[in-house]
Amino acid sequence: MRQPAEATLEQEMRRLAEAARGAARLLSYAPTAQKDAALREAAAALATRSRAILEANRADVDAARQAGQGAAFLDRLALDPKRLDGIARALREVASLPDPVGEVTSSWRRPNGLAVKKVRIPLGVVLMVYEARPNVTVDAAALCLKSGNAAILRPGSDALRSSLALSEAFADGLAAAGLPREAAQVVPTPDREATFALLQLDELIDLAIPRGGPSLIRAVAERSRVPVVKHYQGVCHLFLDASAPLDQAVALAMNGKVQRPGVCNALECLLVHRAAAAKLLPPVGRALAAAGVELRCDPTALTLLRRAAVKAVAARPEDYGREFLDKILAVRVVPHLDAALDHIARYGSLHTEAILTRDLPSARRFEREVTASAVMVNASTRFNDGGELGLGAEIGISTTKLHAFGPMGLAELTTQKYVVEGDGHIRS
Amino acid sequence: MRQPAEATLEQEMRRLAEAARGAARLLSYAPTAQKDAALREAAAALATRSRAILEANRADVDAARQAGQGAAFLDRLALDPKRLDGIARALREVASLPDPVGEVTSSWRRPNGLAVKKVRIPLGVVLMVYEARPNVTVDAAALCLKSGNAAILRPGSDALRSSLALSEAFADGLAAAGLPREAAQVVPTPDREATFALLQLDELIDLAIPRGGPSLIRAVAERSRVPVVKHYQGVCHLFLDASAPLDQAVALAMNGKVQRPGVCNALECLLVHRAAAAKLLPPVGRALAAAGVELRCDPTALTLLRRAAVKAVAARPEDYGREFLDKILAVRVVPHLDAALDHIARYGSLHTEAILTRDLPSARRFEREVTASAVMVNASTRFNDGGELGLGAEIGISTTKLHAFGPMGLAELTTQKYVVEGDGHIRS
Repeated sequence: MRQPAEATLEQEMRRLAEAARGAARLLSYAPTAQKDAALREAAAALATRSRAILEANRADVDAARQAGQGAAFLDRLALDPKRLDGIARALREVASLPDPVGEVTSSWRRPNGLAVKKVRIPLGVVLMVYEARPNVTVDAAALCLKSGNAAILRPGSDALRSSLALSEAFADGLAAAGLPREAAQVVPTPDREATFALLQLDELIDLAIPRGGPSLIRAVAERSRVPVVKHYQGVCHLFLDASAPLDQAVALAMNGKVQRPGVCNALECLLVHRAAAAKLLPPVGRALAAAGVELRCDPTALTLLRRAAVKAVAARPEDYGREFLDKILAVRVVPHLDAALDHIARYGSLHTEAILTRDLPSARRFEREVTASAVMVNASTRFNDGGELGLGAEIGISTTKLHAFGPMGLAELTTQKYVVEGDGHIRS
Repeated sequence: MRQPAEATLEQEMRRLAEAARGAARLLSYAPTAQKDAALREAAAALATRSRAILEANRADVDAARQAGQGAAFLDRLALDPKRLDGIARALREVASLPDPVGEVTSSWRRPNGLAVKKVRIPLGVVLMVYEARPNVTVDAAALCLKSGNAAILRPGSDALRSSLALSEAFADGLAAAGLPREAAQVVPTPDREATFALLQLDELIDLAIPRGGPSLIRAVAERSRVPVVKHYQGVCHLFLDASAPLDQAVALAMNGKVQRPGVCNALECLLVHRAAAAKLLPPVGRALAAAGVELRCDPTALTLLRRAAVKAVAARPEDYGREFLDKILAVRVVPHLDAALDHIARYGSLHTEAILTRDLPSARRFEREVTASAVMVNASTRFNDGGELGLGAEIGISTTKLHAFGPMGLAELTTQKYVVEGDGHIRS
């Protein structure tokens, strides 16, 4: 008797997850040198297999173009020899990072003589669900491998051919180092239900990381039995305090909004202290408008800007708390720090929040009272990034408070166990 | 027009969670002295309100007895003046613990001069779903308060009256210290659906901690959009290696199984190296049997024990991987360390695993290769406990690898944010 198609997909996903679980047990205590060798061999295999990878990618790009995807999408999807070199270089960089597994993060001795230590161990099996970016396939596989985790990789369907071709190279690297090819598997079907089938397998998969837009994140959070760490949107604010220096105000606003508007740590809303608004807002607004930024303002800001002949429009209520990912900025004048804190508590997305001030008490209150994965004092929101913070490579930026909040590097792909050593100790 | 009953419950739970969220924002930066004052005032209020609490508890106990609950259940449910004193003492102990909030766990300076630090912050709102144990209501509220979190407490319905009475005393303490009473709320209805309504509110609740049996844990994990840290069962093993000393083998097996069989870090399965089984198993089995333990054995162990006139029965397959929580122990002879590791990987529940050995390589392999929240080398499984490990009070023992693995104390009720300070730094 034939199985219905859905049961087959579920069975297939279970087999894939069981293979990952088996690989994870081996990886959990694989020596650092062996994991690093696999990463370097994988980098070499990317060159060996470059023709097949670029061909697969061309097929992905052609299909996406025919499906009507825009230029920015196609650019993120496309590979060329130079980008492939970049991916290989990233693999070698991960190989050169310190291995988090086995690190003793603290240790102490109990009065009864028991020696207690906390030791970093891999999470086990990590399911990564992401957008159509082929490089993420290799980056995520590399970070998972280095941290001793087996990876199940679920790229956006437009990048499936590229990702499968890349994962063959990665698997060659694993095999060359004597590690199981199943340590990093790309889900081989574009069927959306495959993701949901995997998300039911909480006895086999330890963590799901969805990275992408609101609908993807919500669908995963709603339907997952596997613990989820979300890499969600950044609705990032900059608060210009009464004492904010003008030149730095212009610099931080411009850097936050203009340097790279399409990323999650870009600025989406500017809050300005009423006492300094007349001084700060016209020049800041002028610089932004000159760079092509549309300013969506509350009535006070709108009046100030128009009086200074800076182009601006009225904000609608939904412009606050919105991730534009574009050259659009919400602007609001607030009466005091407390109002800025209230605004951020209401509209922020826990990603990145910044203050510009010379006032120490304001800086300390902002630092203490704002909940976000990164709080910036006199620095651009754009610094919330694993590389910029000095963490090494990152798999994304978590907006879930649990487990890892902020850039998720190698350490955040581990957990810790207690190791207790006695000499026949029993509890009385 | 009247709302249907379900919508009303959902609305009620949303209001409760919104009140918790509001309190959480205040708690997140409440000074340590204020939180400690609330805990000490709550301890005093327990005495003031003791008559009402004990009356409510008597009603709970009477109802549970009439509902046919057994003696062990009624004993966990019952309060008396002495137990109430113990609860008050626990509150004062939590007040005396260091405050985890604001702790800088690491800090560094970037080459560009940015100062980066990681700072402990509360999780926000914690939903605790647990069994009918009134003391947990106060313990959990206290640990959440000290760590700056608002608590929503959902006791087993048999303990609802007691828990509500206790939470009034706790709220008195909060109010006396100038903190909102909504910082710790007991869900005021026994309706099971209330839990599931709360578990939908992932924008208001940051963490759900279910503590209890398999059906509760599974129901929560399946229906929650809120991140879940499970406090699940302990299927704990002790492996007696070939070199295990006889006296310590007897002591560890007895301590693990007999001292308190009904707890999660009690021993459920004894594995014995074949090379030492003839020497170790008869005396170990004799001591256990004399203490009333039923030994459920594989054929090899059964033969050895019966030859030594120790009472034992044949194990059924389902006896492995089972949490007996009773004076029952599964026993198995294994040919070597690898077989013990395989058995534990297959049947363990990630809780606590122990080895008894004099052989250093065996100890190190066991320590490295076993995945569990605590790995014991020459020590009883019973030491996996917040107090015994020196962590102070604990809210339970997590068997989820994410966020907190093992005893969950104050630090595990926090997360960390980055605080970055510059002087107008922008990213280039």
